[in-house]
Amino acid sequence: MNLILLEPGDFSTTGTTAEPHAPAIAVLRERRFQHVAEVHRAEVGDVLKVGLIDGQIGDGKVIERGDRHIALEISLHSAPPPALPLTMILALPRPKMLKRTIQHATALGVKRLYLINAYRVEKSYWQSPWLAADKLREQCVLGLEQAVDTGMPEIHLRKRFKPFVEDELPGITANSRKLVAHPVTDTPCPIDISGQTALAVGPEGGFIPYEVEKLQDAGFESVHLGPRILRVETALPVLLSRLFPGR
Amino acid sequence: MNLILLEPGDFSTTGTTAEPHAPAIAVLRERRFQHVAEVHRAEVGDVLKVGLIDGQIGDGKVIERGDRHIALEISLHSAPPPALPLTMILALPRPKMLKRTIQHATALGVKRLYLINAYRVEKSYWQSPWLAADKLREQCVLGLEQAVDTGMPEIHLRKRFKPFVEDELPGITANSRKLVAHPVTDTPCPIDISGQTALAVGPEGGFIPYEVEKLQDAGFESVHLGPRILRVETALPVLLSRLFPGR
Repeated sequence: MNLILLEPGDFSTTGTTAEPHAPAIAVLRERRFQHVAEVHRAEVGDVLKVGLIDGQIGDGKVIERGDRHIALEISLHSAPPPALPLTMILALPRPKMLKRTIQHATALGVKRLYLINAYRVEKSYWQSPWLAADKLREQCVLGLEQAVDTGMPEIHLRKRFKPFVEDELPGITANSRKLVAHPVTDTPCPIDISGQTALAVGPEGGFIPYEVEKLQDAGFESVHLGPRILRVETALPVLLSRLFPGR
Repeated sequence: MNLILLEPGDFSTTGTTAEPHAPAIAVLRERRFQHVAEVHRAEVGDVLKVGLIDGQIGDGKVIERGDRHIALEISLHSAPPPALPLTMILALPRPKMLKRTIQHATALGVKRLYLINAYRVEKSYWQSPWLAADKLREQCVLGLEQAVDTGMPEIHLRKRFKPFVEDELPGITANSRKLVAHPVTDTPCPIDISGQTALAVGPEGGFIPYEVEKLQDAGFESVHLGPRILRVETALPVLLSRLFPGR
């Protein structure tokens, strides 16, 4: 937890409309309290790095420490790191990898993620309890806390490949450069591109030819990452670092 | 397992010096047998991708399938992907991350890895049973099988930071460009460099200033990856993809 992520509900009423110039106070309980108490070992007077979800980053000064809560005086003053100009389209990974993949993608600055079906996505993966909105959000929070970012990604689940690619994908990727990571192509993945980008990554074993064709029909260009076949959790940082090395 | 990694001991004597032109036969048992039988569902006549440790890549044609073994006729004909021109120096990660980190690094083409101590490496990490040579090798095998590579990395454990950096590091990084990933610097990590490189990556929380100074004394230049703080398992693919995007 390199950043304590605050939600609007963490703030006490002080500092809101009643007294607009009073300092804003946030109260941490449960998981964040425990982390701050046990890992940071924060005492009154310590200053911790905080950020407001979808807002700025700043300092939280410990002004009160109870047995089950910590109160912080909050001062927000810095912009979070820039978001990647990316729409990520990812075949749903196996449950074991899903949590890590969401955390990695969030930590790397992905803000718009579509988890989609594909032929080689096992049906059972869609039953994972980790696909519930609150569980996905938990993983995003962990990724933001790790990377010192505040912008909550939006995650969309699309259980049917064809209608997604035919009906929805053209709209959400309009004005984007469209790439699909596909080992069987001669075009290497470009390096350091600018502008809006859409990147599709297949499941273990890759998209099947039909799926690659459908993506190509939607304007996606196949690119490869070299001779090595990487797991999605390794391929994702490699791809994003290669497309956006400056971010 | 995108590649079945063979060891010299897998080969029956056929095809060796006794009959130099006879086909080479390799026999798989246990883990590799199970994988090939259950995941690949290989039958007699199927051709699987194989590679000889530290040797070439090629085809393995199933010529016999028993209840507990599979025999392959081996034909090796292609070079493995190129190794990264890199000496990686990594503060020992926590045991939970160690296995994945070794697998990732191997899959990405790291061939020379030093796991070293640092102030923020907890003493207990050095007690991990996963540091035994055979356990490290297992993770390397998984990384090679994933990435379709054959070159076994060499992994060295160095439990004392100062003697390593002062006495050994200059020798093993001579003629290399030397970089240390360190968030607190103004120099961004370079992109697409060529030539021998040494890259040091700290523990969670980073190297302490004394350690960074010692590395700088040894000729290491501090470079950062941008405003995001990444876990070692994410930072590693990002760094390597950035330094060697073409590999």
